[in-house]
Amino acid sequence: MSEPLFTSPLEDTVAIVGVGLIGGSLAAALKQRKIARRVIGVGRDPARIEAARVAGLIDEAQTNLAEAVASANLTVVCTPVGQVVTDVRTAQRALAGLPDGSERLLTDVGSTKASICEGLADVVQFIGSHPIAGSHRQGFEAADARLFEGRVCVLTPLSSASKLQVERLDKFWRAVGMRTVQMTPVAHDAALAMTSHLPHVAAAALARTLVAENRDFVGSGFRDTARLAAGSPDLWLDILLTNSAHVAHGIETLQQALNEFRSALSSGDAHRLRSLLEASQAIRTSLDRNPPS
Amino acid sequence: MSEPLFTSPLEDTVAIVGVGLIGGSLAAALKQRKIARRVIGVGRDPARIEAARVAGLIDEAQTNLAEAVASANLTVVCTPVGQVVTDVRTAQRALAGLPDGSERLLTDVGSTKASICEGLADVVQFIGSHPIAGSHRQGFEAADARLFEGRVCVLTPLSSASKLQVERLDKFWRAVGMRTVQMTPVAHDAALAMTSHLPHVAAAALARTLVAENRDFVGSGFRDTARLAAGSPDLWLDILLTNSAHVAHGIETLQQALNEFRSALSSGDAHRLRSLLEASQAIRTSLDRNPPS
Repeated sequence: MSEPLFTSPLEDTVAIVGVGLIGGSLAAALKQRKIARRVIGVGRDPARIEAARVAGLIDEAQTNLAEAVASANLTVVCTPVGQVVTDVRTAQRALAGLPDGSERLLTDVGSTKASICEGLADVVQFIGSHPIAGSHRQGFEAADARLFEGRVCVLTPLSSASKLQVERLDKFWRAVGMRTVQMTPVAHDAALAMTSHLPHVAAAALARTLVAENRDFVGSGFRDTARLAAGSPDLWLDILLTNSAHVAHGIETLQQALNEFRSALSSGDAHRLRSLLEASQAIRTSLDRNPPS
Repeated sequence: MSEPLFTSPLEDTVAIVGVGLIGGSLAAALKQRKIARRVIGVGRDPARIEAARVAGLIDEAQTNLAEAVASANLTVVCTPVGQVVTDVRTAQRALAGLPDGSERLLTDVGSTKASICEGLADVVQFIGSHPIAGSHRQGFEAADARLFEGRVCVLTPLSSASKLQVERLDKFWRAVGMRTVQMTPVAHDAALAMTSHLPHVAAAALARTLVAENRDFVGSGFRDTARLAAGSPDLWLDILLTNSAHVAHGIETLQQALNEFRSALSSGDAHRLRSLLEASQAIRTSLDRNPPS
């Protein structure tokens, strides 16, 4: 929907740190839905962040994180998982001297939450978020104001978090079009290990099974199943390492499922193989029939 | 390309048995490229096959396989793997009484070749084909005359096959826009186990790891990686059972690749994990950079 949800903006000024696909899409959604009066984009590369401004995604291009945070009511850190703690610490220092510093709100969009939220447990303004939305495209050029619509955003407040601030953050993500869920950082990481991090490992492991002499026989099935393997190793290294125990457990679960197929095949058990294929089909098709709403 | 490749048709009459996505796309390509003067579509359901005719994919709708084969120079059996041997046997009987029966050509498009080609070793008119092209869409409504363009078609003639007939079939698939490769049925099945059948099992096994309470946290990564699991259990049961040893071996190879990721994660070996992710990324991105030409 392109209609503004609010007659007055929810937040006056929002700073978005890291204007790539997610940050850029968030900026686009904030402006299209008039959720913020003003959006400041923060990037390290002056030319890139200026290009995002010229593209109309942000109102102001900024390379200085501290200055942007000082002007913003809400700062959303959209940098890679390995960078979030550093960026939030910089933001915390920027707020330290301000009279209303404790009223500001800081959040992130990182794909793992325990290491980030535990690393920032003392930052009273910080509450973790994970909007589960993405695309295989990268960069603000692929930004899409509708990327978040109908998707789930997980909020992972620590028990010490201010209820008012949690409610404010919850309202923010709902305004963007998301359905919000609150859970602990560890529960989030356990769930996402299975639904997001394991698929990445499965795709990467499948890609690794391809030997050069079989390349000619690759079709769309292999390409799609291994698609995630094309993702950035830097990005995924941080995600997997900050959730290693859950992901390792997920890999074991997948290996057990593969054992079931292998054993049905090795014994030529058509009945068992059919029931495995049918069960998998039912699960996968149910994901299309009932998109998150 | 939509220009006809030949000024006179390569084959006068082609019968296509089973007008679904593959059969329908082949029919469309034959007509668009003027490869055949006349295309007969054969289907069990009179209403469905008549609808394919009304849609302009075929010149004649036929429910009687034997009659269609008797009128055709070349018959392409596009039914599921488990049905191919039966259909080719019916075709063989239809040709038995004809004076020029031995000059006709029969082929199929099945995804496994050893069980089909060995089961039909005595049918002199038959040579196996596997055009490696597809889509997750089904039915002739999704037919696409360009489905085969730039893709690989594997021909699996037995050593007893007529060289002239192999050449004729090779020319036919190249006329459709494909690059052809000849190999033994067993070598075909070993390669396709890794590039097509294993991805299906990987997708199905991944779908199986999804528990109900994690459904809310599924994003596009899981959906894409598990997409193949939505395929028809009937179709895949036959494919997997007729290639069970190769696929079981492929599953083991995938499990070993998963072990590498699991062990790097469990030991927190960032260096090793990065090199695994980078190797997988290189393989997967190479599949986009160099599409089969």
